[in-house]
Order: sequence, then structure tokens, then C-alpha cells
Amino acid sequence: MEISKLESQLAFLMEADRLKNIYRQTYTSTDDLPPMPDGSNVGKPYPRRENDAEHSFSLALFTAVLAEYSNEPIDVPKTMKMVLVHDIVEIDAGDTYCYDAAGNSTKEEREKTAADRLFALLPAEQEKEFRGLWEEFEAGETPEAKFAAAMDRLQPLLLNLHRNGSSWQEHGIKFGQVEKRVSRIEKGSETLYKYIYEKLEDVRKRGILPD
Amino acid sequence: MEISKLESQLAFLMEADRLKNIYRQTYTSTDDLPPMPDGSNVGKPYPRRENDAEHSFSLALFTAVLAEYSNEPIDVPKTMKMVLVHDIVEIDAGDTYCYDAAGNSTKEEREKTAADRLFALLPAEQEKEFRGLWEEFEAGETPEAKFAAAMDRLQPLLLNLHRNGSSWQEHGIKFGQVEKRVSRIEKGSETLYKYIYEKLEDVRKRGILPD
Repeated sequence: MEISKLESQLAFLMEADRLKNIYRQTYTSTDDLPPMPDGSNVGKPYPRRENDAEHSFSLALFTAVLAEYSNEPIDVPKTMKMVLVHDIVEIDAGDTYCYDAAGNSTKEEREKTAADRLFALLPAEQEKEFRGLWEEFEAGETPEAKFAAAMDRLQPLLLNLHRNGSSWQEHGIKFGQVEKRVSRIEKGSETLYKYIYEKLEDVRKRGILPD
Repeated sequence: MEISKLESQLAFLMEADRLKNIYRQTYTSTDDLPPMPDGSNVGKPYPRRENDAEHSFSLALFTAVLAEYSNEPIDVPKTMKMVLVHDIVEIDAGDTYCYDAAGNSTKEEREKTAADRLFALLPAEQEKEFRGLWEEFEAGETPEAKFAAAMDRLQPLLLNLHRNGSSWQEHGIKFGQVEKRVSRIEKGSETLYKYIYEKLEDVRKRGILPD
């Protein structure tokens, strides 16, 4: 009986391993892509995109380190669990780039179907807990969900700033688009919002993010 | 004043991002390596190794899902934080393969030097907390450290079993070596140890791990 419960937990964990194969638009901070087939980067460091497992790792660590800046008191462990599973539906639904309007119009339904399958791998009690955390994150109304969303915006922004906005430039993103997205940080943390907004203004002045 | 504290926290978090570029011996569960320069895997899926950020993500999720199997009651959030930073010293010290005797003889000193530099990036209070968690993990004596070590053994073992022991075969690892390593799981969780030992015996019978 216990083994059968354990096997369902391990099935969920092995499925979650697939987050390592869902790539985002953001580049990691270091140039660590293996050599490309055309030899264009042999002997040269080369940027590579971050995957969802790496992104979720970062958000959990960001939450642990930056929780003091939340506007409202938060349950830190709950928020850490929330960010660990916040992207898990992308295993089935894929990563939808935040500035992709067409992709975002079908995102909700695709992600709900994914949640139905993935969280059901867990034993009933944990299915309820983890699906609940994901739904709470999506709804974005509790202090934990607001802070988690702030981390989810802040982390790629920092990576992008570290790379002088390379993934924004690749997609022709304008200042107003980033500004709108970053406003979610303010709902979770005014301190972090203020800090990052200044950095963003600086990037705008340097012409990296056009108006 | 607050901004200066925040900047030191962000410096630590950006440094931790480098864990995404420290590769382990274990392969991820999915075949997701980009095409190789010699074209040997064009159009074919190809295995790739897991990095420390992905490994730490997995351990945090494993801890959240499997905590009930700990031999002793554990502080789950503390254990999650512990596994998130347990490999951070490898940013400077590199990953030492667990079956590499020469590498392991200098590991302790290399990792202590790395800890001195890395945790000092944090503000004093958090430096104390996170360095403390890392030292507690290394000492392996508290219930949390024992469970974290069990997760650290269990997760690559499951990935390796999923791949029919490919990284063991690559390095000519024998049953007794894995058996010895796996015994650390028993100290953290007898249930998980019993479960995994049976899987290992099965692999031995199939000749994947020679005696």
C-alpha cells in the first residue's frame, strides 16, 4: 500500500524532470552552450537559453533570500513550493513567451488540461496541495502568489539585464512592454520594483529598450 | 542602506546562477542535447548531463514530496533551503564525481575555500544562515542533513535507473560501490532505502551493475 503511494510520488517526480527540457526565451548568465553543428562557436563561449527546471531553482532561491522585501508577510516555505511547481504545466503545454499574443490566447486552456494530467499523478492529498498552489499562483491574489509572481518577473529581468537585453533585442521588445510586465513586481514588492525600475530606466537611456 | 544590502543579495543570486554551468555525471531523464558538431545526433534525440541547478531543483521538489518518509521528523522548509545551496561550493570547486578517489581527497579543502568566498557575498545574517545549512549538510548528523543526503543519493539513482545505468557503465562502476553509496539513504529514510535497494538488486540481476 505504502509502496504504491510512493510509486505515484516518484512517477510525479520523474515527470517533473522533463522541466529540464522545456526551454525559455531568457539566456542563462554564463556562456555554456556545447559546440554548435556548424562549428560557429568552437573554442568560443556561447549563450544558451535557460530551462524551466533551472528557472524554478532560481525562483526558489530568490524567494528564500529576498522574502523580507515582500509588501505583505508571506509563508516562505509555501511560496518556495509554489515557485517549484509554478511552471510544471509547461511539460505538456510548452513555454509561451510572455510577449506572444497568439500563444497567450490559448494558454489558459492548454495549461488547465496539463494540470489535470500532471497533478493527478500524485496521491490525492498532495494532488490537492500542489494543484492548489499552482491555481493560487495563477490567480495571483494572495500575498504568496503576488510575491511568487514578482520573483517570476524579477529573475529573467536580471538575467536579461546581465546580457544587456539580448532576448528583448532578438524579439524587438519595446520599453513599454517590459514596463507593463514589470509592474507585477510592484504588487509583490515595492522595494524590488523601485530598484529594478531604476535599472530599466538606465537601459532605456542607453537605447537597449526603444520607446 | 537597504539598497546596498539588496545588491549584495542579488550578487549572491547571480553568482548562484553559475550552478547552471556545472555539469554532473548523471544524465537527465529526457534526450535533449542540442545537435553535436560531428552531426552524429542530427535528427536523433541524444542524452545530456544534468547540471547542479537542475539537480538542486529536483532535490527541493523531492524533499517537498517525500518528506513523510524521513526516519525522524524534519523541518521541511529548512531541508529545502539546505538542498538548494548544498552544491553551491561547486561553482568554484567543480563537481567531484562520487567515485573519483583522487578528486575526493582534495575536495574538502577546495570546497571550504569556495564556501568562504560565496557565502560572504550575502549580508551577515544570511551568510550565517546559508553557510550554516551547508555545513550542517556536510556534517550529515541532523535529521534534516540525513534526509537531504538521502535525497542527494536517491535522485541521481532514479535517473540512472531510468537510463538503465548508463553513467555507471560509462565509468565501470560495480554493484558494491553503488551499494555503499546508497547506504546513506537508509540513514535518512528506511522506506526509501528498502524501495530503492530492491530496484538495485534487479539491475544487478540483469548484469547492468557487475559484482
